[in-house]
Amino acid sequence: MNELQSYRNFWKEYTRLSDIISLLHWDSEVMMPDDGREERAEQISQLSSLSHKMFTGDDAKRHIENLQNVIAHNPPEAVPLKRELEILERDRNRAVTLPIELVERFSKLTNLAHGVWADAKKNKDFKSFEPTLTEITELSIEMAECYGYTTERYDALLEGYETGAKSKDLEALFLHLKNSLIPIVNEGKSYSSPFKKPIPVELQKAFNDKLPGLLGLPASASRLDISVHPFSTSIGSKDKRITTRYHITDPLSSIFGVLHETGHALYEYGLGQMKDYPSPLTAAVSLGVHESQSRLWENQVGRSRAFWEYFYPILLKEFNIYHYDLPFDDFYNHLNSVVKSKVRVEADQVTYNLHIILRFEIERDLISRRIKVSELPEVWNAKMKESFDLKINDDAEGVLQDVHWSGGAFGYFPTYTLGNIYSAQLFHHFLATHESFWDDVIKRGDMTSLNKWLGKKVYSHGRILDPKELIKEATGEAPKSDYLVKYLKSKVKEQE
Amino acid sequence: MNELQSYRNFWKEYTRLSDIISLLHWDSEVMMPDDGREERAEQISQLSSLSHKMFTGDDAKRHIENLQNVIAHNPPEAVPLKRELEILERDRNRAVTLPIELVERFSKLTNLAHGVWADAKKNKDFKSFEPTLTEITELSIEMAECYGYTTERYDALLEGYETGAKSKDLEALFLHLKNSLIPIVNEGKSYSSPFKKPIPVELQKAFNDKLPGLLGLPASASRLDISVHPFSTSIGSKDKRITTRYHITDPLSSIFGVLHETGHALYEYGLGQMKDYPSPLTAAVSLGVHESQSRLWENQVGRSRAFWEYFYPILLKEFNIYHYDLPFDDFYNHLNSVVKSKVRVEADQVTYNLHIILRFEIERDLISRRIKVSELPEVWNAKMKESFDLKINDDAEGVLQDVHWSGGAFGYFPTYTLGNIYSAQLFHHFLATHESFWDDVIKRGDMTSLNKWLGKKVYSHGRILDPKELIKEATGEAPKSDYLVKYLKSKVKEQE
Repeated sequence: MNELQSYRNFWKEYTRLSDIISLLHWDSEVMMPDDGREERAEQISQLSSLSHKMFTGDDAKRHIENLQNVIAHNPPEAVPLKRELEILERDRNRAVTLPIELVERFSKLTNLAHGVWADAKKNKDFKSFEPTLTEITELSIEMAECYGYTTERYDALLEGYETGAKSKDLEALFLHLKNSLIPIVNEGKSYSSPFKKPIPVELQKAFNDKLPGLLGLPASASRLDISVHPFSTSIGSKDKRITTRYHITDPLSSIFGVLHETGHALYEYGLGQMKDYPSPLTAAVSLGVHESQSRLWENQVGRSRAFWEYFYPILLKEFNIYHYDLPFDDFYNHLNSVVKSKVRVEADQVTYNLHIILRFEIERDLISRRIKVSELPEVWNAKMKESFDLKINDDAEGVLQDVHWSGGAFGYFPTYTLGNIYSAQLFHHFLATHESFWDDVIKRGDMTSLNKWLGKKVYSHGRILDPKELIKEATGEAPKSDYLVKYLKSKVKEQE
Repeated sequence: MNELQSYRNFWKEYTRLSDIISLLHWDSEVMMPDDGREERAEQISQLSSLSHKMFTGDDAKRHIENLQNVIAHNPPEAVPLKRELEILERDRNRAVTLPIELVERFSKLTNLAHGVWADAKKNKDFKSFEPTLTEITELSIEMAECYGYTTERYDALLEGYETGAKSKDLEALFLHLKNSLIPIVNEGKSYSSPFKKPIPVELQKAFNDKLPGLLGLPASASRLDISVHPFSTSIGSKDKRITTRYHITDPLSSIFGVLHETGHALYEYGLGQMKDYPSPLTAAVSLGVHESQSRLWENQVGRSRAFWEYFYPILLKEFNIYHYDLPFDDFYNHLNSVVKSKVRVEADQVTYNLHIILRFEIERDLISRRIKVSELPEVWNAKMKESFDLKINDDAEGVLQDVHWSGGAFGYFPTYTLGNIYSAQLFHHFLATHESFWDDVIKRGDMTSLNKWLGKKVYSHGRILDPKELIKEATGEAPKSDYLVKYLKSKVKEQE
């Protein structure tokens, strides 16, 4: 077996290990009996440690040296291999800076923390989560110090989610966006739910089950389940799993959960079709780009008039509702409502970014030790008052609402707004070259041209291009917030 | 960390790996999208290989030497450790005889074979499964040769499921049982299904969901799902999963599936409560004993008049049936029917053992090369004619009916009848010392005394005693088929 083949096999085993860890996580949130929690945390910790050792160990080092060797001899395959090697070295250099003991502590702690957070949220009691979150914050700071940074500590964590992103740049980008959003939010109108009766979960499911397939995700390679917090995960190149949650009085919550997570799953499914899968290049390039894929289907497509012109009759049928009990305009206006919500995952597409900017500011301050964990509820509630003029009544609707910090995912939140920015820019350029798209959607629910275009412009590139380059190559321009602002303005204008 | 503690940690990691492999299997049969099959086989193969290496490698050897050392110094804990070391050495000696390459081939082949078998069964086409089964048989013979044997090759495989069992002894035991069964079968009566209409799956589920908890399996540590073939598996000491299958025209099929698999899960749950869990001693002692636990709840309890005196009204309510549409006597007689069925898993408790004896004879001949894989359908159908006077119309109801051979589980089948023998003997002795049991069941559905007794007599012993010793200690007698024969006779007598 030659060096390249041996390296490919190594990478395949490494990928399988990640896929198994994903299954352990998926199962723990979707299927596992409660009492399994403690042993599951140990199982995940054990395999995560094994995976970390595999990536940081001597075998990986030897494979990198072999790849350097192969490239030095300059065969025809050397050009794509150069980028692959670059990514591999970048990832490994980042990984080897962390002591294995720290990785294990972090993994075990955050796995157990999920349950502590869920209980605390249930009991609306931040105090019961505070000691755990303090431990997670301290470990995150320790990790950031290991990674190193030039300007500020938070950058070291950001890099793990959005390669090349810097706090200072985001601060400027977000300030500009915030300033553009405020007048839009003030103009936006809120429309109450047009549903006159609860929709049973089974009826919602029947509608939702149709969506992933119509968006382009093969049924033979995916599942849709229920969890507390919707998510998408990959158990293999042909095994993509998404979840949503059901509220009988708010059926849109489950539908938009499915649209969002299907966007993620489509990206992952596309990556699995890349040449030489699995390799360091056949993965998502950043969480921002990942989020752009979910947001594009959820908002640009899922909140469009065309989409609902096709799906509204199907929804009526599945939900067993007469059209005069759910007038189209009431329905359409409601799903494009602008309303100052307390909860990020239920926020409308306009105010959503204000939620993100709040979290970005808080976690940046937390990691910089400008604020303490114990001050979080107070800081959170004050910022909610300041940004939204909303009073937070308890921690469940406040600082405990998101799962992210229980997983130690500091640096993750800003990628949501980056995703929104990318998605608006990508979709604007797609529409410019695909004039019949909305007609195809209205007439036949046909969205294949979009799936194909994203395959060509996004999925098939994996990590060959960095996020900024990817957006520039797909749209001809560097990422900017103008398309997002333009899109949101048009949505609010539609309401007039 | 002292030597004993270090060994305990090693064993914990080894156990976790097995639990993760169990999850990969469970998921593939219950949840996984079809296209995930190939990568899943690779995932299982990779972890199985890792697990095998862990058990056969130098670390395990070092731990054995350390244990020998600890025992040699004769501390107070040496006595239980002696048995633990004995079991550990026996298992490891068996495992190290297999080349790792053979283990990997076997694991990968049998994982893929499951799908091939399922397709072949669906298409009623043995020919499409024949090449795969031939490969499995050849690998099994190769493995038996590695293990070694004194009298005949099949013994080497039997040992993997029922420690100490020999073909010659089973032949004698089974011949005696067969001779006793024939007159009972001839006296037995068949009662057709008393259900006048199909029972929707949801109603069956509502009833079944109550059973595991009432038998003693905590809901917080278990799940009940659906799969093609019912099974029970352990993902951790507090995560036991069982499955059943649903036929709307035969609701008893799902109920007895649940009772059977709950019996397995109760044993596993009990083993998880043992001191020093996990250790080589805190596992099932044999498949025969495992099966005795499932059969005891399924047959001795689940087909008893007392059990149904309590559960019949609940069943009527959940199934939405009036009592005059399902008279108790018709129902009770039906579930104790004796009928010559073609399919083992649907066979009654009397003829069941004839099905097993047929499989034992066939697989013993297959492994001894007295018959070929290509001859299996012919041999199968001839034996069905001989034993049951039944004509097999297609391979799905014949040689393809069972999953076992696709998993290479030669030597597994005889443990079913050993389980029946053990279960009758155990239950006879339980009843002799617990006179109020049937009253408790009739009045309150209370079966806790049985669960407690089994915990004391079976679960808590793990592998401390070998199967024969375990039965002797629990009942005061060596295993014998008399109690099974007596029980089955009494069932047929009830019908008069």
